[in-house]
Amino acid sequence: MNKAIISSEFQLLQDRICKALENIDGSSLFVEDKWEREEGGGGRTRIIQNGSVIEKGGVAFSMVEGIVTDGMKTQMGIKGNEFFATGVSIVLHPSNPHIPIIHMNVRYFELDNGDYWFGGGIDLTPHYIIPNQAKEFHIGLKKVCDKYNKEFYPKFKNWADDYFYIPHRNETRGIGGIFFDHLKPNSESSKEDIFNFCIELGDTFSILYKYQVNCGKDILITNKQIKWRNLRRGRYVEFNLVNDKGTKFGLVSGGRTESILMSLPANASWEYNYLPINDSKEKQTLDLLKKGVDWVMLKKS
Amino acid sequence: MNKAIISSEFQLLQDRICKALENIDGSSLFVEDKWEREEGGGGRTRIIQNGSVIEKGGVAFSMVEGIVTDGMKTQMGIKGNEFFATGVSIVLHPSNPHIPIIHMNVRYFELDNGDYWFGGGIDLTPHYIIPNQAKEFHIGLKKVCDKYNKEFYPKFKNWADDYFYIPHRNETRGIGGIFFDHLKPNSESSKEDIFNFCIELGDTFSILYKYQVNCGKDILITNKQIKWRNLRRGRYVEFNLVNDKGTKFGLVSGGRTESILMSLPANASWEYNYLPINDSKEKQTLDLLKKGVDWVMLKKS
Repeated sequence: MNKAIISSEFQLLQDRICKALENIDGSSLFVEDKWEREEGGGGRTRIIQNGSVIEKGGVAFSMVEGIVTDGMKTQMGIKGNEFFATGVSIVLHPSNPHIPIIHMNVRYFELDNGDYWFGGGIDLTPHYIIPNQAKEFHIGLKKVCDKYNKEFYPKFKNWADDYFYIPHRNETRGIGGIFFDHLKPNSESSKEDIFNFCIELGDTFSILYKYQVNCGKDILITNKQIKWRNLRRGRYVEFNLVNDKGTKFGLVSGGRTESILMSLPANASWEYNYLPINDSKEKQTLDLLKKGVDWVMLKKS
Repeated sequence: MNKAIISSEFQLLQDRICKALENIDGSSLFVEDKWEREEGGGGRTRIIQNGSVIEKGGVAFSMVEGIVTDGMKTQMGIKGNEFFATGVSIVLHPSNPHIPIIHMNVRYFELDNGDYWFGGGIDLTPHYIIPNQAKEFHIGLKKVCDKYNKEFYPKFKNWADDYFYIPHRNETRGIGGIFFDHLKPNSESSKEDIFNFCIELGDTFSILYKYQVNCGKDILITNKQIKWRNLRRGRYVEFNLVNDKGTKFGLVSGGRTESILMSLPANASWEYNYLPINDSKEKQTLDLLKKGVDWVMLKKS
């Protein structure tokens, strides 16, 4: 279970996910942009556009290595001289407002001093929150977590609530999901266990998303819903550019801008002080964008 | 020339600018949103939307006071227990891609330990850079600067080049303008001189913008140009949310989110790795988005 194996397994994961997403979309295919990094490593950024389901999305694999910069030492609080990092990152923006935006990431980080860890997560950003669908999503995540460690889901669910939060809006980005970082072997889990957990999470991604897509894809859409989708995309942009530690770190540390910002939607809107009317679907969604909702235990309606 | 007078003069400046912009637009009027801040002070955020020239814009006055937080001490490097801040901020997003986005700000900051200073600037972000128009803009700014201090324009022009820069794109936001901060009285300028400079700069704003509007407003537009405008707006969003120190400080220090983010356009676009073709107007614009262009000395073409 060395870094070369992890990196090559992540590439295979990327392959499987792209294939599954092409099946879900049914019309568009991924286009690959291969890149190399002067300081070491490179990646395969795969973009899908103008599909029948996905308007703009990316599934990116990268494997980079190099010298630990002062910025990394300060921002990540790490010790060591050289690092190795590999991972798969996904963001999908569907065109239908009744299908949620989804994000996934699994990553592995290793230092030349022998320290290493895994990180990752999946979270969902519905333009319209449908509680039953949110429940299904969280149940799916809990199932994968529970297989490895019963403490994972509650811990990683809260972590996602905290991470995917927009303080200046006092809103969560969506209904959360799971988020974890610095996951290392201990008496309960070996390195291989954690790796397997990451891979299984990755393979669960397209199954969970397929369910969400099927729930929403045949719902007819109105101009009002398109407008709302674009405003919610605006919030997604705000989170990613203002609050997301990963994006910020990538941009300031000289990461590949186009690969980092593949997370942004094809378009987004802003309107001064837009407030949806009471009792509207839009207002119901806003009211659910908060931390601490126990989606798994939600009563089915 | 105390803070009450400065604040009230800034309100009058806001009134004059809004009136001038309503004349320039010719169809839409500003709508005022008055707000108060629990900790002290408040503002008048004025928004104009869907005009014949301006698609979305704001002219905001604010006057806030309160306790200097630890965050302010660290980020602004200031000493003192209580602060007072007042200013006028403007961002205008025109609908016609041949009219530039414009930004202006004048501000006054005072601490209870007696320290105080002015800051501000005007800068232009054309979707399509027309060198002769860029030259006119900079000549106009130089004229105001030179009246007060011959050193202002070269110093503040370079400051704008450095400030309105997007490192992760290796692009300036637009053609710059002037930017200054911590401007205090010295042997050459009294407090009143600096204040008058800020007010005159504010009153020059609408004159300079009227010229830019007139140059572009009757040019017919194509879908391709609209697409390019939206991609450039995407960069504007990136700068404001990732790089702009003022926006970041406002958002993390608990400023009024809607007033801070009135700077965002009605819509913006992103496309993976979009590169304009060689010799196109779009490519010519990209090639001019760099620091150190001496617009004033540019030969007229």
